[in-house]
Amino acid sequence: LPETAERTAVPGVATGLAVTGLGGDVLFIEANTAPATGETGGGGGGGGLTLTGQLGDVMKESAQIALSYVRAHADELGLDATAVDRLSRRVHLHVPAGAVPKDGPSAGVTMVTALTSLATGRAVRSDVAMTGEVTLNGRVLPIGGVKQKLLAAQRAGVTTVFIPQRNEPDLDDVPVEVLEALTVHPVADVRDILALALEPAVPSGNDAHSTAA
Amino acid sequence: LPETAERTAVPGVATGLAVTGLGGDVLFIEANTAPATGETGGGGGGGGLTLTGQLGDVMKESAQIALSYVRAHADELGLDATAVDRLSRRVHLHVPAGAVPKDGPSAGVTMVTALTSLATGRAVRSDVAMTGEVTLNGRVLPIGGVKQKLLAAQRAGVTTVFIPQRNEPDLDDVPVEVLEALTVHPVADVRDILALALEPAVPSGNDAHSTAA
Amino acid sequence: LPETAERTAVPGVATGLAVTGLGGDVLFIEANTAPATGETGGGGGGGGLTLTGQLGDVMKESAQIALSYVRAHADELGLDATAVDRLSRRVHLHVPAGAVPKDGPSAGVTMVTALTSLATGRAVRSDVAMTGEVTLNGRVLPIGGVKQKLLAAQRAGVTTVFIPQRNEPDLDDVPVEVLEALTVHPVADVRDILALALEPAVPSGNDAHSTAA
Amino acid sequence: LPETAERTAVPGVATGLAVTGLGGDVLFIEANTAPATGETGGGGGGGGLTLTGQLGDVMKESAQIALSYVRAHADELGLDATAVDRLSRRVHLHVPAGAVPKDGPSAGVTMVTALTSLATGRAVRSDVAMTGEVTLNGRVLPIGGVKQKLLAAQRAGVTTVFIPQRNEPDLDDVPVEVLEALTVHPVADVRDILALALEPAVPSGNDAHSTAA
Amino acid sequence: LPETAERTAVPGVATGLAVTGLGGDVLFIEANTAPATGETGGGGGGGGLTLTGQLGDVMKESAQIALSYVRAHADELGLDATAVDRLSRRVHLHVPAGAVPKDGPSAGVTMVTALTSLATGRAVRSDVAMTGEVTLNGRVLPIGGVKQKLLAAQRAGVTTVFIPQRNEPDLDDVPVEVLEALTVHPVADVRDILALALEPAVPSGNDAHSTAA
Amino acid sequence: LPETAERTAVPGVATGLAVTGLGGDVLFIEANTAPATGETGGGGGGGGLTLTGQLGDVMKESAQIALSYVRAHADELGLDATAVDRLSRRVHLHVPAGAVPKDGPSAGVTMVTALTSLATGRAVRSDVAMTGEVTLNGRVLPIGGVKQKLLAAQRAGVTTVFIPQRNEPDLDDVPVEVLEALTVHPVADVRDILALALEPAVPSGNDAHSTAA
Ligand SMILES: [Ca+2]
Ligand SMILES: [Ca+2]
Ligand SMILES: [Ca+2]
Ligand SMILES: [Ca+2]
Ligand SMILES: [Ca+2]
Ligand SMILES: [Ca+2]
Ligand SMILES: [Ca+2]
Ligand SMILES: [Ca+2]
Ligand SMILES: [Ca+2]
Ligand SMILES: [Ca+2]
Ligand SMILES: [Ca+2]
Ligand SMILES: [Ca+2]
Repeated sequence: LPETAERTAVPGVATGLAVTGLGGDVLFIEANTAPATGETGGGGGGGGLTLTGQLGDVMKESAQIALSYVRAHADELGLDATAVDRLSRRVHLHVPAGAVPKDGPSAGVTMVTALTSLATGRAVRSDVAMTGEVTLNGRVLPIGGVKQKLLAAQRAGVTTVFIPQRNEPDLDDVPVEVLEALTVHPVADVRDILALALEPAVPSGNDAHSTAA
Repeated sequence: LPETAERTAVPGVATGLAVTGLGGDVLFIEANTAPATGETGGGGGGGGLTLTGQLGDVMKESAQIALSYVRAHADELGLDATAVDRLSRRVHLHVPAGAVPKDGPSAGVTMVTALTSLATGRAVRSDVAMTGEVTLNGRVLPIGGVKQKLLAAQRAGVTTVFIPQRNEPDLDDVPVEVLEALTVHPVADVRDILALALEPAVPSGNDAHSTAA
Repeated sequence: LPETAERTAVPGVATGLAVTGLGGDVLFIEANTAPATGETGGGGGGGGLTLTGQLGDVMKESAQIALSYVRAHADELGLDATAVDRLSRRVHLHVPAGAVPKDGPSAGVTMVTALTSLATGRAVRSDVAMTGEVTLNGRVLPIGGVKQKLLAAQRAGVTTVFIPQRNEPDLDDVPVEVLEALTVHPVADVRDILALALEPAVPSGNDAHSTAA
Repeated sequence: LPETAERTAVPGVATGLAVTGLGGDVLFIEANTAPATGETGGGGGGGGLTLTGQLGDVMKESAQIALSYVRAHADELGLDATAVDRLSRRVHLHVPAGAVPKDGPSAGVTMVTALTSLATGRAVRSDVAMTGEVTLNGRVLPIGGVKQKLLAAQRAGVTTVFIPQRNEPDLDDVPVEVLEALTVHPVADVRDILALALEPAVPSGNDAHSTAA
Repeated sequence: LPETAERTAVPGVATGLAVTGLGGDVLFIEANTAPATGETGGGGGGGGLTLTGQLGDVMKESAQIALSYVRAHADELGLDATAVDRLSRRVHLHVPAGAVPKDGPSAGVTMVTALTSLATGRAVRSDVAMTGEVTLNGRVLPIGGVKQKLLAAQRAGVTTVFIPQRNEPDLDDVPVEVLEALTVHPVADVRDILALALEPAVPSGNDAHSTAA
Repeated sequence: LPETAERTAVPGVATGLAVTGLGGDVLFIEANTAPATGETGGGGGGGGLTLTGQLGDVMKESAQIALSYVRAHADELGLDATAVDRLSRRVHLHVPAGAVPKDGPSAGVTMVTALTSLATGRAVRSDVAMTGEVTLNGRVLPIGGVKQKLLAAQRAGVTTVFIPQRNEPDLDDVPVEVLEALTVHPVADVRDILALALEPAVPSGNDAHSTAA
């Protein structure tokens, strides 16, 4: 699965699933932040959020919710001081392709995963994709387009997909050969995604941020 | 009552009641804030308010009113220094579902309750729902849709509902079996809601914020 | 007169008069501010103004004018250091009901009165209502709807009403029984309102802010 | 001349001239600023400008130009340290009546005069009115409506009027009885207005700001 | 040439050339900045740019480009510490007349010249006018209306005009008597304008800013 | 190749390729930043981005992505402390000509190259042009108009062109004589462009920023 492997090779990138005019497609959520340099700060100001990728109002709000969730639940998510510090800087979240308008709340869980990956330096597994609205407490709410999204996941070579628990009935409409090719995890809390989707931490002698391909 | 119990399991969430195109429904007000980390601050800036959930102008103003009320009346509400400190940070208030536009002043008391819960670390009782506009001094003003809201409360398994005192005459139109299933408290001051709707404080050895399900 | 008594029981609230689609009505201007807590400040930023109540452009400007007037004339108004300090914080001014659009300059004197009440901790007399545009120097300019406003004042149980001096000729159109029920003070300077409308200061052993009903 | 005398009794107010739908009229430019109180500042932020009176884009720019002119030319204008300090705070400039939209560049010289009066504590002479666009260097550019404006000045009881030098030919169209009632000064530099329009400084034992009627 | 001489008598003003509905005209770019006074600053904030004169989007961007160019190339332009300090404050750039909308990139070189004049305290020669778009590196790009602009320069009594090198072919359309009255310098770098257009520095005993007529 | 040589003679300028209404054209991305001067800063605020050249929404986002990429990947890109410091200031990015509206994501790689050139003080090779969308991790995504862009590159005298790897099939439509005149490098990571397009560093005794023509 070359595309998702290349894209998720560095911490801060997670694979989402979208409904487009032509069915479904995978989409990548990219997050980064720059080390502070002196008083002016390398990444801009303090603690803000830069959003790019022609995101609509609802999707911009999803990004704010995802960042607030990770910041407020840092302890529960097991973030250490280095991770908390990374998220306390200005964060930039981008969703390629840059010229394609995108909207809706269903990238919420993918944004939480990308931000947690950025904070911890643990890359996201390249064989995993996910879809689901997230609340300020990490609950996963139902979304639309499950069938098209699972078809797109299979086409992209993904093998594990997280969907909202309340979308489990939608699996009845998914072709059996697609379901056989995928491991589908219905989840009610985004922590169940984080527990499985992040790769193990790199031993501390290595700097995970500088080993990207 | 699984849904409201799950949603209100953590401090910072209160159950409101809304009129929708299809009758009434319960709605959850979620509030959180992140601990400050160094100089840049974990939650953004100082003392501001982030609002998400596709809120209209009136509902955004309700959130500002609710936050000002709780901050200005911290002494009267019995907030200790830790609680005041939590509210002095940037607060994020979200109303799922993220893609559904919402407006109107009737979530005011629910916002006050969610913010007080966030500040004190005392969860909101999961069998309680509420509706009412709130003023900058905590007075509860009348709202519309009492009948549909009480029907929705009953359907959601809620047993105690707070309504504005000046809406008491609207109870005449509510079916008797709904009124029998609910304890309805007409109130004129939001402190009468807070006195009953918040669960007792967790003994100080426990950190209420990290025991959520 | 229960409504105005309850609403003006705490410092920071003054009773105004408005023309509505259905004649006239009383309207309450509520002001508050939160004590600073540490560096971030409890009420937001430094010295700004939060306005809610679906106020139009002209009414928002009235609030800015009222706040600038009181801040710039603190000495003349006899504000002590505590009062000046309260107004140097972020002030929130709200005009219920939250969903009703309001506009026009005629609440200017009411805003000055509410802010002075907030600053001094002296409540506004509940039997007093007022209407009039205010300038940056406290002059009271004429407004419209004197007849409807006086009728509304009487209906609300108010007994003393301040109107702009240049509106004195409009009293000819007010029914005699209304004029008999009211003491009407035409004024040219807002200080003439403040001198009569504020209740005496509470002796300094009591904290006026925490004895509200 | 009661109206202009009352309005210009305090420093910070100057009398301008406007063309309205009904001919010409006098208009008052009011400026104030509040002493700083502690770190948050009494008047808001540092050095900014609050504008009210339903001013259009061009008139708002005039106010910015006027303030920049006075601040940048403080030495030439003979402002002492106290005066410079007053203008370094947030300044509020208001043009009553609050609900009447106003626009155009011709209040520029009046704004410079009001701001210089505010800074120095020297009131503006109540028998003086003025009109003219001002540049960033204090040059006075021509405006429209000279005839209507002089008629309005006479009606208001003003006896001295400043107009732009390049508007001198327009005096041919002004009725001779108006010209006889007025002393008209065509000027090319706003300093020629300031030299005549400001009253002498109050001896330093008195505080000019607290002796207003 | 009275008009340009009066207008450019003080540092910070340069004469540009514009195409209007009635042919061409001279236009003056005025720049100023106020000394800092204490912590709040006399000119507003730190390093920003205030723009007035009803400028369109393109012309506003020209001003930002001009300011960035001068700040980034201070060393090459020979600005001393005093000059650099002046440009590090908030700068106000105004283009009279205040009510006339203006747009386009061709005032770029004039803005660079006005800002360099402001920074150095060296006035711009009153017999010089200029037109040309400027890039962030000081290159001069071609503009339109050369013929009308040169006619306007001659009418205004200007004797030296700078145009973009790539506009040299447009001189073929200019009447020979206009070309005989003017010295036209085609330039590719704005530094070639600065080298000729600024008057010599005033000996350091005099303060150039306070000797303006 | 005079034009590109002149334009790219200073660090901070890179040559891009655009599709216009008349085929293709070269376009220059210019970046600069000013040294900090005291507390207010020479270039404006801390770490922000000023964008000019009538850029559309997508192109503005491209600039934010390019700046975030370079700041976050400073280590990988081999930027030393001086280079990192330059990018931590306010950066101005301009795309002449100032009056021509521009949009789209395909200048992303050119922006990354210009910013890296600015940071390092290494000029961009004048015989090189490039096109490609860039992601927050430096991946190069496909763009449109490869044929027109290569024709424009050849016309401008460029000899080396970078295109996105996924646009390699588009080379089939490019005339063979154009391909013979150009060295075309398809790339998947923007670091492959930076490795070839930047000129060697100037020995440290010279200040690269002050040797521009
Ligand atoms: Ca929308
Ligand atoms: Ca991976
Ligand atoms: Ca609305
Ligand atoms: Ca509960
Ligand atoms: Ca309006
Ligand atoms: Ca009272
Ligand atoms: Ca306009
Ligand atoms: Ca006077
Ligand atoms: Ca435009
Ligand atoms: Ca000169
Ligand atoms: Ca767009
Ligand atoms: Ca080069």
